[in-house]
Amino acid sequence: MAAAPHLGEFERIARFFGPLAGPGALGLADDVALIDGPAGEQYALTTDTIVEGVDYFPDDPPDLVARKLLRVNLSDLAAKGAQPFGYLLTTVLPQARNEAWLEAFSTGLAADQKEFGIVLLGGDSSATPGPTTLSLTAIGRVAKGKAVLRSGARPGDVIYVSGTIGDAALGLGILKGEIEAPSKKDRNFLVDRYRIPQPRLALGQKLVGLATAMIDISDGLIADLKHICDASGAAAWIYADAVTRSESARKLSKTLKNFRALQLGGGDDYELLFTSPPSSAYRIGDVTREVGMTVACIGEMEPGEGVRVLDAKKRPIQIDIAGYSHF
Amino acid sequence: MAAAPHLGEFERIARFFGPLAGPGALGLADDVALIDGPAGEQYALTTDTIVEGVDYFPDDPPDLVARKLLRVNLSDLAAKGAQPFGYLLTTVLPQARNEAWLEAFSTGLAADQKEFGIVLLGGDSSATPGPTTLSLTAIGRVAKGKAVLRSGARPGDVIYVSGTIGDAALGLGILKGEIEAPSKKDRNFLVDRYRIPQPRLALGQKLVGLATAMIDISDGLIADLKHICDASGAAAWIYADAVTRSESARKLSKTLKNFRALQLGGGDDYELLFTSPPSSAYRIGDVTREVGMTVACIGEMEPGEGVRVLDAKKRPIQIDIAGYSHF
Repeated sequence: MAAAPHLGEFERIARFFGPLAGPGALGLADDVALIDGPAGEQYALTTDTIVEGVDYFPDDPPDLVARKLLRVNLSDLAAKGAQPFGYLLTTVLPQARNEAWLEAFSTGLAADQKEFGIVLLGGDSSATPGPTTLSLTAIGRVAKGKAVLRSGARPGDVIYVSGTIGDAALGLGILKGEIEAPSKKDRNFLVDRYRIPQPRLALGQKLVGLATAMIDISDGLIADLKHICDASGAAAWIYADAVTRSESARKLSKTLKNFRALQLGGGDDYELLFTSPPSSAYRIGDVTREVGMTVACIGEMEPGEGVRVLDAKKRPIQIDIAGYSHF
Repeated sequence: MAAAPHLGEFERIARFFGPLAGPGALGLADDVALIDGPAGEQYALTTDTIVEGVDYFPDDPPDLVARKLLRVNLSDLAAKGAQPFGYLLTTVLPQARNEAWLEAFSTGLAADQKEFGIVLLGGDSSATPGPTTLSLTAIGRVAKGKAVLRSGARPGDVIYVSGTIGDAALGLGILKGEIEAPSKKDRNFLVDRYRIPQPRLALGQKLVGLATAMIDISDGLIADLKHICDASGAAAWIYADAVTRSESARKLSKTLKNFRALQLGGGDDYELLFTSPPSSAYRIGDVTREVGMTVACIGEMEPGEGVRVLDAKKRPIQIDIAGYSHF
């Protein structure tokens, strides 16, 4: 997830674990693994780990920690068009994590199980002298061969993004005391966007057969678009101004000097970023309305490699996203 | 696994996570979860986590750490009669774990992938200020409805155990400097038994349809037999002297005052402990020989609850297993 991708992280995975990957692993270069399920279906499996003090604050409410852990995994399933049904959970806890913490943590899980119609399937628990470390493996179903991979984008495909982008990075900035919220309402909205991602499951499932490539925005819009480019063997350009911002983000964009870098470089929005041929534009609009979401066209795939960010006059802009890790 | 089950651990799981468990979770009281697979099969999923300094020594060779992590999961699949085919891996590493460590670690995985015919399917990686924390989720196949659960033992069933018991606890004692090996050869044998478990996959698969309940010995023979008793709603008695010991263990049993407690209380042998009606005894013998293993009858299930250990004259013996956690 979130798992702050230091430069070198992807190389490490490719070098040491790539040679171990089998069929279904999608080269360890997608959000999920796929294995055959019953009745013309496949299971999509995804796993994410969060570490206290690295991926969340030690005093974050345990129920929200639980829900975020669950939701970032569900978001990976959403990005493949899969419908989640269950998960495995591993809790590695220091002594200090008492039963009150565990009770609140499980309350968060219970709430989200109800919201998303999923169940706990199993897991493990262990003790550690280090920080709380929580791993979750989510399992979803998708029609066989229909999962939307990262690798299907083709030059000429339109690039879309759901919802609004940059809110979670602003929420994190507020929590860290680096950004001042315009109002209490804005603060709550932005902090919630960081703490309680909304996995776009309904939209993701509707996009099966329409989207050629899809990913959820966890690393940041530019970084995740680059994942699609790398997996698809193509390049992308986007209009910076076309990337949707929320009302709260709009207010902050007027005062924050680094707003654009934060919006395009920050992660954790868990919106869907996907590509589709221009001929599907009407149907994309239809399914988006059906699920009560909005999507914006932000650019286009092209031959080559890498991501170009353009201003309104199609001039390239340099965006310094280096500072945007997830925590 | 291994995950040292402090008293209270199982209660914690039952209390906080039990209510979240869905169909397929087997009440969180077995080694695996079961979900439907293709063509009359089910997938068995199991996950185990190991923490540096808790479950293994910081200077243990990384390739052996990898192989043990993989094998303890495969052992869980063996105990259900499932055939493994893939796994997800999560590595949570401190800065100090450099590429040489990762390379050796992945070499261990590669060796065991070849040995067991399995592949890496996916995973996650993250950073931590704490100790190295490694999680693995293994997936196997078993004919639908045929997985051997913990819960099927009935009064009158014979209790069997494969291989030799107590070797791993002796190996751990040697590594900790608490036990002196009789010879270098004994030392190597016992330490290997601790470090490189042999998941009894072939035997486990042959026991499908024969064993009424099965578990792998990770917590210790008495503790794991108690898991079968609890899940089956029955009691068990065993003859202490019937529990098989290796030649190396036999030598040490003459000098170690606490040998019996260590043999019956220590864990990590990863042998199979299972029950079967007396009428199946010949077939158990046949399949055991077919896979080149030995099994011993060590006792019998009876009505009631709990585990009684008896001497050769059927008198109860008190065994103090309290001191035998896994590390």
